[in-house]
Amino acid sequence: MKNKAITSRDVDFAKWYDDVVRAAKLATYSSVKGCVIIEPNGYAIWENIQKVLDNMFKETGHRNLYMPLFIPESLLNREKEHVEGFAPEVAWVTHGGSKELEERMCVRPTSETLFCEYYANTIHSYRDLPMLYNQWCNVVRWEKETRPFLRSREFLWQEGHTMHETAREAEAETLQMLNIYKKFFEDYLAIPVIVGKKTEKEKFAGAEYTYTVEALMYNGVSLQSGTSHYFGQKFSIPFDVKFTNRNNELENTYQTSWGVSTRMIGGLIMVHSDDNGLVLPPKIAPRQVVIIPIGTDENVLNKAKDINASLQRSGIISFIDDSEKSPGFKFAEHETNGIPVRIEIGPKDLDAGQVVLARRDTGEKITASLEDSLVGVVQELLDRIQNNLFETARKRRDAQTYTATSMEEVKEIMENHPGFVKAMWCGDEACELKMKEIRGTKSRCIPFEDQQEHISDSCVCCGKKAKTMVIWGIQY
Amino acid sequence: MKNKAITSRDVDFAKWYDDVVRAAKLATYSSVKGCVIIEPNGYAIWENIQKVLDNMFKETGHRNLYMPLFIPESLLNREKEHVEGFAPEVAWVTHGGSKELEERMCVRPTSETLFCEYYANTIHSYRDLPMLYNQWCNVVRWEKETRPFLRSREFLWQEGHTMHETAREAEAETLQMLNIYKKFFEDYLAIPVIVGKKTEKEKFAGAEYTYTVEALMYNGVSLQSGTSHYFGQKFSIPFDVKFTNRNNELENTYQTSWGVSTRMIGGLIMVHSDDNGLVLPPKIAPRQVVIIPIGTDENVLNKAKDINASLQRSGIISFIDDSEKSPGFKFAEHETNGIPVRIEIGPKDLDAGQVVLARRDTGEKITASLEDSLVGVVQELLDRIQNNLFETARKRRDAQTYTATSMEEVKEIMENHPGFVKAMWCGDEACELKMKEIRGTKSRCIPFEDQQEHISDSCVCCGKKAKTMVIWGIQY
Repeated sequence: MKNKAITSRDVDFAKWYDDVVRAAKLATYSSVKGCVIIEPNGYAIWENIQKVLDNMFKETGHRNLYMPLFIPESLLNREKEHVEGFAPEVAWVTHGGSKELEERMCVRPTSETLFCEYYANTIHSYRDLPMLYNQWCNVVRWEKETRPFLRSREFLWQEGHTMHETAREAEAETLQMLNIYKKFFEDYLAIPVIVGKKTEKEKFAGAEYTYTVEALMYNGVSLQSGTSHYFGQKFSIPFDVKFTNRNNELENTYQTSWGVSTRMIGGLIMVHSDDNGLVLPPKIAPRQVVIIPIGTDENVLNKAKDINASLQRSGIISFIDDSEKSPGFKFAEHETNGIPVRIEIGPKDLDAGQVVLARRDTGEKITASLEDSLVGVVQELLDRIQNNLFETARKRRDAQTYTATSMEEVKEIMENHPGFVKAMWCGDEACELKMKEIRGTKSRCIPFEDQQEHISDSCVCCGKKAKTMVIWGIQY
Repeated sequence: MKNKAITSRDVDFAKWYDDVVRAAKLATYSSVKGCVIIEPNGYAIWENIQKVLDNMFKETGHRNLYMPLFIPESLLNREKEHVEGFAPEVAWVTHGGSKELEERMCVRPTSETLFCEYYANTIHSYRDLPMLYNQWCNVVRWEKETRPFLRSREFLWQEGHTMHETAREAEAETLQMLNIYKKFFEDYLAIPVIVGKKTEKEKFAGAEYTYTVEALMYNGVSLQSGTSHYFGQKFSIPFDVKFTNRNNELENTYQTSWGVSTRMIGGLIMVHSDDNGLVLPPKIAPRQVVIIPIGTDENVLNKAKDINASLQRSGIISFIDDSEKSPGFKFAEHETNGIPVRIEIGPKDLDAGQVVLARRDTGEKITASLEDSLVGVVQELLDRIQNNLFETARKRRDAQTYTATSMEEVKEIMENHPGFVKAMWCGDEACELKMKEIRGTKSRCIPFEDQQEHISDSCVCCGKKAKTMVIWGIQY
């Protein structure tokens, strides 16, 4: 049963994406150009993401705070590379009430500058370190295109900013947060990711280096899904963040920052959803099970209520749809909305002492006896769906991961069946620019040592001696 | 033991407030004029407030979403009273990147206009109603003064916006949300409040009427702490929000909005805190119990860990402070930070099979046997502290609530020992303006019928026939 309101993802992926977002009521547009409204169905996913990640941050000693929305121009200008990276895409507030401001302020595109100013005022001694803070907030970057969750002038995210006594400790933090993101993507979002270091060209404006989490979408395009930056003292020097170290000397602190955003919801859609609408991993789905009583038999409705109550008691997020719509309409609606499991129960089922469970991921229908522990069956099914989504995505990602030793090979891959391409690189930015000519192919990351492979001796682009293997992909 | 870093609240209340905010590290300033940084100790209170209120909203059928930060000028201008109320205090974005915008946009001071536009696009039939949405977000109002939590150019809040089929249903929602706020203030923040309707002069710009939650601070000044507005069709007509009603006719929807903000944290401070720093009701305190082992005896530390584990197992938020600071320093620090209960345990206590519990609210010390259920003792103590804070605040509020029948009486009260003043009013705005001459006294609310009293026959100001009793107070 194909959902007619949704274009097939194999026919027009961009239109399919918009159709899924609209049909599942995840986000919509307003008269505010470049911005989107995150609707309740979409925002509920964000709330679940926040809940899980926030716990992970707190378990590793981080605390939340809240910085101002505005950054005075002079403060933004303090670190040169940073301002060059962000100034072209910030929104400027020039008037407050009816008065022109003495100094214009940008709406934060990211908050390194404000955190640095704060840390400069609060850090005195090594005893004050580390400072491990995070904030959940909105940020603004004046993008030209708009795609819900993927690219919009305002988006929601978290930005962690930490200060440390030593480079070693800050670098360990950078890696720790990368690993937390990887775990979150794989264990909760069921999205297999590759991790590694960004090239100099692709790193964050002002960072020493950037670690990244990269995911591959259904159509073979790559999505940068989270980043963790090591700053060393690149901000702490211009912002004068100093502490008295254990040798009683003044020293500048060592810094990190790391963030993920509502863009993850775009990734979730593009990895798991299908031509019938949204598909959600049970661990992040706002509603896991819908129970649909068929017909108007009171015994059926009461049984549905019993089942609902027992599922909820076990911590499964279930609900009954006993609205007046037809069963067929309800099936389609909850399918479009990505509810992982549907339980159907009608008079015949009740007589036979059974219910029918339908999986959203595979469409498979399973008959379960009411005499067995239905809670156990449902819990096990939710786990199976979670695992199946991850395994399906992993297999597809692996199948769409190629090696190439020449530009012709890269071109053949990216133009016909794009994906991740493992290829050697000499380290020269000119070669990165050359790669971009092939459908905008960019370096996604330089994998860590244990993930490096020796594809060939020479750079895929210039043929000179290669330094490292890079994973390349078409950029979202 | 008086905290020397904190001015006495009876000597200089404004300075005392700033001292408590600074000493407990709740908020601080940055180079962003008019804005504050909410520090981790302050933000943790906000997180707890959000958790409790968000549950209350969801239990009554509300869902969260997220609207854009910006409002195009033309959209803000759609409802006349609304724009007149807000335009003088909004921040304007005029440039995106390096380009001047075709139409300038304000940073949302509140989001009625965006919600209305959204509802106009999504509501078609009475079957779509009610729509019960809320958002947690930042808003901006270009204030001249800055007081942390009480008044700043940016603050955090929630704004609920609902649309209904009938006026009756929308009015019931307005009242329901007022009652939720009242319950939250009294049961969680331990702040006794008065509720009622705002006068025409004091209602929200564009509302039919506004209900308000008003609290009295330690110094007798009133704080408007939450509002719930009934709009009728005042926005749904200019914004063209229409639905097909049960008679198959097109009709404009009936609307409400309601909000509380980080200002509540300011109220918490000004109602409960004292000359030793922050005092927090246990139900909203981010950390409820601190355990301080005295000395370095390993048995003492192990016992402290046992106690901590058993408290945490019972859901009490406890922690051990085994840092190298002196016990006296720790006592003062956790007192300043408002931890409701301190547990002291030293070698002598251990030998005697006891611990000492110290209450933050009264300073009282209680010896508890380790043989009894310490968890039960602590839980009961936390409940007692919660109740005591409410009762203390209620008694003070009652003692500071006066009646007046003449302007001389009002003047005498407000100039010498301010508080709530119950006095009759003719309904004329001129009298409200006249009252303002007495230290800025304003009508706080017109209490509901069952709280009305007959203070006298005539208006406290002009002496003409009175229509209603009003509660007056000095405005924060």
